[in-house]
Amino acid sequence: MTDQIDPSKVTASRITISVDAMGGDAGPAAVVAGIALSAEKNPDIGFILHGPVEQLKPLVAKMRGLTDRVEIRDAREVVSMEDKPSQVMRHGKKTSMWSAVESVKKGEADGAVSCGNTGALMAISMIRLRKLPGVNRPAIAILWPSRNPQGFNVMLDVGADVRADAQDLLQYALMGTSYTRNSMDIARPRVGLLNVGTEEHKGHAELKEAYSLISDHAERGNFDFVGFVEGSDIPGDTADVIVTDGFTGNVAIKTGEGTASLIRITLREAFTYSILSRLAAIFALPSLNRLSKKIDPRRVNGGVFLGLNGTIVKSHGGADATGVSAAVKLAFLLAQQGFAEKLAARVASSAPLTQSELDCVPTEVT
Amino acid sequence: MTDQIDPSKVTASRITISVDAMGGDAGPAAVVAGIALSAEKNPDIGFILHGPVEQLKPLVAKMRGLTDRVEIRDAREVVSMEDKPSQVMRHGKKTSMWSAVESVKKGEADGAVSCGNTGALMAISMIRLRKLPGVNRPAIAILWPSRNPQGFNVMLDVGADVRADAQDLLQYALMGTSYTRNSMDIARPRVGLLNVGTEEHKGHAELKEAYSLISDHAERGNFDFVGFVEGSDIPGDTADVIVTDGFTGNVAIKTGEGTASLIRITLREAFTYSILSRLAAIFALPSLNRLSKKIDPRRVNGGVFLGLNGTIVKSHGGADATGVSAAVKLAFLLAQQGFAEKLAARVASSAPLTQSELDCVPTEVT
Repeated sequence: MTDQIDPSKVTASRITISVDAMGGDAGPAAVVAGIALSAEKNPDIGFILHGPVEQLKPLVAKMRGLTDRVEIRDAREVVSMEDKPSQVMRHGKKTSMWSAVESVKKGEADGAVSCGNTGALMAISMIRLRKLPGVNRPAIAILWPSRNPQGFNVMLDVGADVRADAQDLLQYALMGTSYTRNSMDIARPRVGLLNVGTEEHKGHAELKEAYSLISDHAERGNFDFVGFVEGSDIPGDTADVIVTDGFTGNVAIKTGEGTASLIRITLREAFTYSILSRLAAIFALPSLNRLSKKIDPRRVNGGVFLGLNGTIVKSHGGADATGVSAAVKLAFLLAQQGFAEKLAARVASSAPLTQSELDCVPTEVT
Repeated sequence: MTDQIDPSKVTASRITISVDAMGGDAGPAAVVAGIALSAEKNPDIGFILHGPVEQLKPLVAKMRGLTDRVEIRDAREVVSMEDKPSQVMRHGKKTSMWSAVESVKKGEADGAVSCGNTGALMAISMIRLRKLPGVNRPAIAILWPSRNPQGFNVMLDVGADVRADAQDLLQYALMGTSYTRNSMDIARPRVGLLNVGTEEHKGHAELKEAYSLISDHAERGNFDFVGFVEGSDIPGDTADVIVTDGFTGNVAIKTGEGTASLIRITLREAFTYSILSRLAAIFALPSLNRLSKKIDPRRVNGGVFLGLNGTIVKSHGGADATGVSAAVKLAFLLAQQGFAEKLAARVASSAPLTQSELDCVPTEVT
């Protein structure tokens, strides 16, 4: 991504992102402001924007230089946060979310972004894009602030499916590795399997089975398996990819978010406690801002759906313009890397792996 | 607890806590320093201290006024953090941990505290103290910093057992409620069942079953059931008691601890970034100390084993004197309240509950 416009490059590598304008807590204005931010920074990006045209047209027109980068697709209905995924699957064809996924399905867009209902977005994505051959359960991967040099770890699944068996956990390890390689500069990611302790005898039977499956695939998958990791390793530096089922992953990230939010509130209270502490806050402001920036969830906004024929990025429901722009940037980056194709190749290469194949020479797939 | 010694009270209500001096990361010196702190603050407490007598005797002698409050029980072996619970159950009879639990079993002590291996402590406690009638799986409950007025929530199970079915989750709700009533000033605790969303259709089948079981018992159990809660509610203010299985609970608290620790490190970096920020840190110190005190894990040190015939408090392995003293205080408080007996009555009262009994007048058991 570059800040300077190079006309030859614009036509050659223009990437189109399909964006669901509706369903976020902050409404379509925040979404349009977000894509305007991305358009300003990135000359190689174009948009298909989905929602009620009479609402979207004036919002887009207000943003300088956005009109000729955005195509509006009229969609009359909106998926709400309360809608059940099963209902949306049956009756949601006229929604902006469905329309946004449809653009990826038809090949008009290289990826889609939505701030809406996660369950509904996954359900629509599953029936329209279909799972990659060899994938039983798709997963949602997020970036989590960590003590690793890259500043983040990849964690999956954080809520696509409440269950995962050993084979699913192996798929998550492979997809997470591929995602890490394509979104960060890490050639050989370290994969950890989330458990209640690091000793091999701990945890459920399916975790022990997943342990040996992932271990067997590490060489061929070109990753390091660091074995079982604990909750404290999610923000830690022992692994780059944390593999778990969607129930545990979802509870873990929400606990982490809640804890961070509690500390934020307590910190604010501590600095407004007395006149003296308010004064201290003024001096401390640059330091507090540095902290805030480092753990700002908006900077890493975007859960990526892995295991489908196409790239879908789920932005946080409460995302503002900065958050939407971060999700768009992620979708752009993955499209530019040809991530969907690489992931398909990665999963296909591992699917037929049997005991007899474990001695084969590793094939180079990212 | 009072800071002034009232001799008449000392003899009348002396409570004896059995303490495993070994197995903590900081060694027996930290444990002895911890009980000395407790003894200084609390005239009603006495100790039975378990470990190698030649190590413990000089440590106790060094502390003023401690010798006549402590009885040392010589135990030659130590359970290490690496020992498997199954091995300790078979070959651990000579360890300080076993000896500490044995004192509760024999009625010599009103509760026990250990900083050692959690799995081994639970295993020894289960075989020596036995489960309460009606309890299938005992649980470990902890206090977690929260936005509630009391400053903490009770969460269980955080790792006694990696599995829990609907009936176990009901028991956790009842035991957690009883613990909350006896450790905090909350007459009618609010209970939440941890899930990936608050909507009733979400989560595993056993969670839905547990939902209706707990709901059915709320009136008789004298608690409010707030339904499903999410990870973000663990440090939140929607519930006082968070019920979950030991796998999810363990991952959640470790994720929360890891996140808090990451923020602590980042905060320190932010305040040592430049000369100016170091200067700001001096001004900000009182505020930062207020934050630090509020989220200090040592203040709420102590996981309580619920569902056994006797009170066992598991202190953090890395506890220093302050941490050990907090765990001792918790064991003392629960013994003083007659918690073990109240819990037994609570579980017994709920055990035979059938559909036909749901219309009965609630019995008052805390």
